[in-house]
Amino acid sequence: MKRRVFLGALGAAAVAQPAAPRIDAARLRRHVEELSVFGRPAGGTFAGGVSRVAYTDADLAGRAYVRKLIEQAGLAPRIDAAGNILARRAGADDSLAPVLFGSHIDSVPSGGNFDGALGTLAAIEAVQTLHDSGIATRRPLEIVVWQNEEGYAFNNGLEGSRAAAGEMDPHELAAVWNGMTRADAIRKIGGDPERLADARRARGSFACYLELHIEQGGSLDKAHIPIGVVEGIVAIDRYEVEIRGFANHAGTTPMPDRRDALVAASFLTIAVNEIVRRDPGRQVGTVGQIEVSPNVPNIVPGRVKLVIELRDLSSRKIAAIGEEIRSRALEIARRTGTGIEMRAAAHHDEALADPEVQRSIEAAAAKLGLASRRLPSGAGHDAQMMARLGPMGMIFVPSVGGISHSPNELSRWEDCANGANVLLLTVLDRAAR
Amino acid sequence: MKRRVFLGALGAAAVAQPAAPRIDAARLRRHVEELSVFGRPAGGTFAGGVSRVAYTDADLAGRAYVRKLIEQAGLAPRIDAAGNILARRAGADDSLAPVLFGSHIDSVPSGGNFDGALGTLAAIEAVQTLHDSGIATRRPLEIVVWQNEEGYAFNNGLEGSRAAAGEMDPHELAAVWNGMTRADAIRKIGGDPERLADARRARGSFACYLELHIEQGGSLDKAHIPIGVVEGIVAIDRYEVEIRGFANHAGTTPMPDRRDALVAASFLTIAVNEIVRRDPGRQVGTVGQIEVSPNVPNIVPGRVKLVIELRDLSSRKIAAIGEEIRSRALEIARRTGTGIEMRAAAHHDEALADPEVQRSIEAAAAKLGLASRRLPSGAGHDAQMMARLGPMGMIFVPSVGGISHSPNELSRWEDCANGANVLLLTVLDRAAR
Repeated sequence: MKRRVFLGALGAAAVAQPAAPRIDAARLRRHVEELSVFGRPAGGTFAGGVSRVAYTDADLAGRAYVRKLIEQAGLAPRIDAAGNILARRAGADDSLAPVLFGSHIDSVPSGGNFDGALGTLAAIEAVQTLHDSGIATRRPLEIVVWQNEEGYAFNNGLEGSRAAAGEMDPHELAAVWNGMTRADAIRKIGGDPERLADARRARGSFACYLELHIEQGGSLDKAHIPIGVVEGIVAIDRYEVEIRGFANHAGTTPMPDRRDALVAASFLTIAVNEIVRRDPGRQVGTVGQIEVSPNVPNIVPGRVKLVIELRDLSSRKIAAIGEEIRSRALEIARRTGTGIEMRAAAHHDEALADPEVQRSIEAAAAKLGLASRRLPSGAGHDAQMMARLGPMGMIFVPSVGGISHSPNELSRWEDCANGANVLLLTVLDRAAR
Repeated sequence: MKRRVFLGALGAAAVAQPAAPRIDAARLRRHVEELSVFGRPAGGTFAGGVSRVAYTDADLAGRAYVRKLIEQAGLAPRIDAAGNILARRAGADDSLAPVLFGSHIDSVPSGGNFDGALGTLAAIEAVQTLHDSGIATRRPLEIVVWQNEEGYAFNNGLEGSRAAAGEMDPHELAAVWNGMTRADAIRKIGGDPERLADARRARGSFACYLELHIEQGGSLDKAHIPIGVVEGIVAIDRYEVEIRGFANHAGTTPMPDRRDALVAASFLTIAVNEIVRRDPGRQVGTVGQIEVSPNVPNIVPGRVKLVIELRDLSSRKIAAIGEEIRSRALEIARRTGTGIEMRAAAHHDEALADPEVQRSIEAAAAKLGLASRRLPSGAGHDAQMMARLGPMGMIFVPSVGGISHSPNELSRWEDCANGANVLLLTVLDRAAR
């Protein structure tokens, strides 16, 4: 088939160009269903979700399946030193930096069929569509399937994209999970841990990075908006809090004499909730983990450990919230006769999406007649690693009920197809520039 | 030595009588120190406390030691069918019901040297004093060392006194702990589980029951009052609460969409504290145990189970508090979008001390020039079982800092001696009536 070269940037309406192509929604659905077989519980159905933890046999089988699809789309997949699957499609001007796009196919245990899988298969579908239509792009294209995004294995995450961003330290290769080292794991999926540095990408090695993903929250679904334009991936502050009261007999210790660490923890949990909700904005704050000692019904709790997690697109905003929680904690300690120590345990910077790329995504949605809304990503994605190296953009599609990391995770087929078409048009737009 | 008969009831000042005897404080201390060796951690000192769990070798050795002391005090100890050690001292009118008094010598693991031990050794010391002074009493006396008061073994407690009150069901004999049945355990300490019913005492089989015990709370210590006159052993209501919210991603779930079970649990914990403290009185309420699911930092807690425990001398008062907590829980559920189920899991009635016996204890303290204060016992004691069969009274001495069930449990020797003298004078008073 003779190749057409797709020249028109979105919004550059004056340039004569062929009609924009559309992905094959039925084929995309078939691929999502076919991939879901790898890691499906014995005797299960599509509705039962998948357990496709990185480096397991299910992950290896899924990787073989997507490599086959990439070949069918006319590309030659390779595996980089970190174990990521990459495939390049030449551009009309092949000296230009490529548009990079993709996602991951590993899942959490008892995960869903869409997280990662949709973005990966939509990327392949976009290339397949261009292949079938004989459309060439000005810039080359590069698709990527990142390895171990979820990080259930080795308890970290974004493993492939961290390596590509130069954020995986060689000493991490010796870490052991499930009886194998990280080096063994990378070797198992075809990587070459001894040459880990080769997986590293330079700044400017791509024109932009794009990723389609399910929202994993309920905002789009609740608002009946099919396309989310990600403004960035939130910053995260995590605090470990220790509250020291005094463990004593719950029958014999009069109320005024108590130094009850769980009462103090309860005031603090409510304070976190109130402070985070008080001002407008999309910041979130959670006490998700709590450990009480001695934790028996007839002893006043003597010690509580808990974790506070704050997220927002602005590091400064959550830092200010953290300080306000800290001063509230001092008040609570005074009032309850306890000692409260609040230790900053982790900080992740926000990764902002590129404004130009956001506009391209919005224009693509508009061209398809789809409503879109800007929103932050509250969850982490490989895209945040790529944002360190170049312009980044993410497209979200609704998750029914906001459920993810669960067999009940569900995105409607129509929404999946819409997201893939927005990805395709955005790729074409960015590759034409 | 010729016996004197002690006739004067306390407060009956007109009757000519010999000077009231006093216990030997140095001997009592020596016995407490000697008993503490059984169950002492290897290489430990008195300050390191004891682990003298019922039915262990340490418990058996401790029981042999107190039997020897009872023999030295001129009595012949016997072991009843439930494994309790009993010893009777004849009265001038031996047809009368005896004054029964004693305590226990078993401890919790890593327990203290005074809980139970003091009351047991003070009872023996009282008899030894009468023996040494040649004093006879009108009523017979009976001392008792209850077995397995703490109930670490078989996870229940008040085992010997429950059997004596007819509250131990024969089917409980088959229960297994640490590889042995309760029947085996009773046999191990010299009891006869096949004849368990023989250990049962009839109502009216004692004139009154007396027990000296450490306070286990801090009220007396804080107020510098050497003698506590127990008004009764509190009633206990225990509720198991389950809070069902919705577990969701802590990064992607907007604050207004959350149904956070831990936020609801925090409101409830504070409500329990506030409702219990609002009205004057000595009622206590505690959330001591809490279990959060999934309990990871980045997931909004979906489910919480917790236990509420309420105690007061009045069952009616804690029932009313429970109802108020229940209606507050409904409000909290509504406000937090959660479901809260509150299930009554256990109820123990209060066991009131006999008013006449309380007055005898107060008079004994006054005669010794010791300040006393009435107070409830927030912890359970064998005395509560005896209260089902006849008049009961308890004498408390201060616990330094209110600490008990810990190697740090401590009662000053002077307070121990004062308590033993109050016990002795109260026994003499009640035995004279």
